[in-house]
Amino acid sequence: MHSGQNNSPVAGVLIAAALALATCVVPAHAADDRNAQPAALMIKEQGSFAVGGTVIRSPGAEGQTLHGDHARVFYQVPVDARKLPLVMWHGFGQFGKTWETTADGREGYQTIFLRRRFPVYLVDQPRRGGAARSTVGTTISAAPDDQRWFNMFRLGRWPDFFAGAQFSRDPEALNQYFRQMVPDTGPFDAKVATDAVSALFDRIGPGVLVTHSQSGGLGWIAAMKNPNVRAVVSYEPGSGFVFPEGEVPAPMQSMTGPLEGFAVPKAEFAKLTRIPIVVYYGDNIPEEPSKNFGEDNWRVRLAMARLWTEAINRHGGDATLVHLPELGIRGNTHFPFSDLNNVQVADLMSGFLARKGLD
Amino acid sequence: MHSGQNNSPVAGVLIAAALALATCVVPAHAADDRNAQPAALMIKEQGSFAVGGTVIRSPGAEGQTLHGDHARVFYQVPVDARKLPLVMWHGFGQFGKTWETTADGREGYQTIFLRRRFPVYLVDQPRRGGAARSTVGTTISAAPDDQRWFNMFRLGRWPDFFAGAQFSRDPEALNQYFRQMVPDTGPFDAKVATDAVSALFDRIGPGVLVTHSQSGGLGWIAAMKNPNVRAVVSYEPGSGFVFPEGEVPAPMQSMTGPLEGFAVPKAEFAKLTRIPIVVYYGDNIPEEPSKNFGEDNWRVRLAMARLWTEAINRHGGDATLVHLPELGIRGNTHFPFSDLNNVQVADLMSGFLARKGLD
Repeated sequence: MHSGQNNSPVAGVLIAAALALATCVVPAHAADDRNAQPAALMIKEQGSFAVGGTVIRSPGAEGQTLHGDHARVFYQVPVDARKLPLVMWHGFGQFGKTWETTADGREGYQTIFLRRRFPVYLVDQPRRGGAARSTVGTTISAAPDDQRWFNMFRLGRWPDFFAGAQFSRDPEALNQYFRQMVPDTGPFDAKVATDAVSALFDRIGPGVLVTHSQSGGLGWIAAMKNPNVRAVVSYEPGSGFVFPEGEVPAPMQSMTGPLEGFAVPKAEFAKLTRIPIVVYYGDNIPEEPSKNFGEDNWRVRLAMARLWTEAINRHGGDATLVHLPELGIRGNTHFPFSDLNNVQVADLMSGFLARKGLD
Repeated sequence: MHSGQNNSPVAGVLIAAALALATCVVPAHAADDRNAQPAALMIKEQGSFAVGGTVIRSPGAEGQTLHGDHARVFYQVPVDARKLPLVMWHGFGQFGKTWETTADGREGYQTIFLRRRFPVYLVDQPRRGGAARSTVGTTISAAPDDQRWFNMFRLGRWPDFFAGAQFSRDPEALNQYFRQMVPDTGPFDAKVATDAVSALFDRIGPGVLVTHSQSGGLGWIAAMKNPNVRAVVSYEPGSGFVFPEGEVPAPMQSMTGPLEGFAVPKAEFAKLTRIPIVVYYGDNIPEEPSKNFGEDNWRVRLAMARLWTEAINRHGGDATLVHLPELGIRGNTHFPFSDLNNVQVADLMSGFLARKGLD
């Protein structure tokens, strides 16, 4: 093979350059062939920090302090990054893991969107996960409740998965899924949580907030607190729907209790009409009351979200509700971003970001 | 500047190649000039998983389960990785954050050793941080105790830093430092912790275990449990020193209570003599009893570690105790790997790994 046919100096330089290029890692976002070895991620910078929070003091001159109620953030900035970072905020009983490797071992939103050249910030909200240091004590129960979450998160009706549920049937996936839950290490406090996330946007500047479930409602509050929240992508928001004073819908009854909207001053609500918002819901949410609490719970939440997006748009805003089955995308659970079709779900989000000029 | 002097096809190709090379990211480990923009990290793979743990069940046919007591692991594998991964295990009151960005915002061991081409696995031990789901409940106190840790972790004698302490005097660094603490979300259980870390080594195969403080003693147990632990690097081990039956030293009295060695069967102890071990301690550890509990606490631990490494070596092992001030490296706290001179401290560890053929 060493034929000596290319022994001129110029050819030698060309070959050297070609070899160097061959070992040069291709851009991370070029890897869309799922059968191929994914390209390397090129990370310009990564790290973690605490943000927000408060300090309490014990009495007396020799008093001790406790620094708590901050959020923990792990972030990665890819090479050739897009301008606006994505801030990903977990839901109830979860932490930053929500966005990492899926229960069945595939890449989650953290890495998918790094490959798409977004800086990605994963939040552990105050009193959860790596932000567990709380200024208020609590008691943690070890009462078993996995099956409750299987139903509530709409994997199916325990022990059966919904037909076509976008969740691996490998038992190890369910093992991993149950183990990504974490308890609150202090009383849940919406102000503490939203103050910390607002402090994050103070620190990093403009970005897109991606919420899930419990952080959906918290996300609206954070967006009203901080104009650096330039858009919200909300997966299955489950509570905290805010309406202008005088326009709060009647509570909706469900097997998991009444779902109420909350009144905020019109001037506050107006802030949510100035940013693009998209809300996604998955499959197996009935239109009519269900005897299965997990399904009935989400029936009223989807219904309330419809009223909510209508209210945003009625006041001149730009909110879109996407019920995935209406696009023919079936089987999604309460965690569409980590379901088996999460690349397809991510593509929808990429499309939203592109249409709104956020990428 | 566009002089047209290089308009031959060959020159054009050369220029294109040169431009391509200029945008090609250099290998991550090439960035040792601390004044330069660090090179991009090239990550072949990253993700997270739960490992080990158990399942408990509530009584009755409709019983619920709880999956808990696993470790949480976040890992990154660089391009062109070395063979043996580094498994980094935090100490008391801490979680994987220990190894991430330092309190003053510089790169910690996670990223430093990724740049040196090691796969890096960060552990949250069971009942801590992202592995908070415990099979046993607990109560979490919010009693302020920051100043206790300032002294115990040998930053100084509150409110004064030790002269020359390798810790930033920027108040934000101390703010970050206090906020990286997390409570236990279940009772501390050495068996639960070491079983989970042993399960990690079952999953990933041979590797080097890097421990800190409380995980020092746990690390010896994990290494006895699992032959995939091929070496141990232990920063300031603080408890759980194991000795062969009949060779346990007398307890050592200190202001924080007696420090006892623990007996293990000779055959178990022998397992620790078959792997290279290095133990590092920082500065401001007195030889004589001190009236300051933080200093007195580490006085007996350093003394016990000396007896321990002697016992390992007496039985044919390969344990080295490095007291950093004896090398002229001054000012290190209980967290040498995140102190201001952590690159120098990392260089020592790299040297150990190289000498033992572990890199």
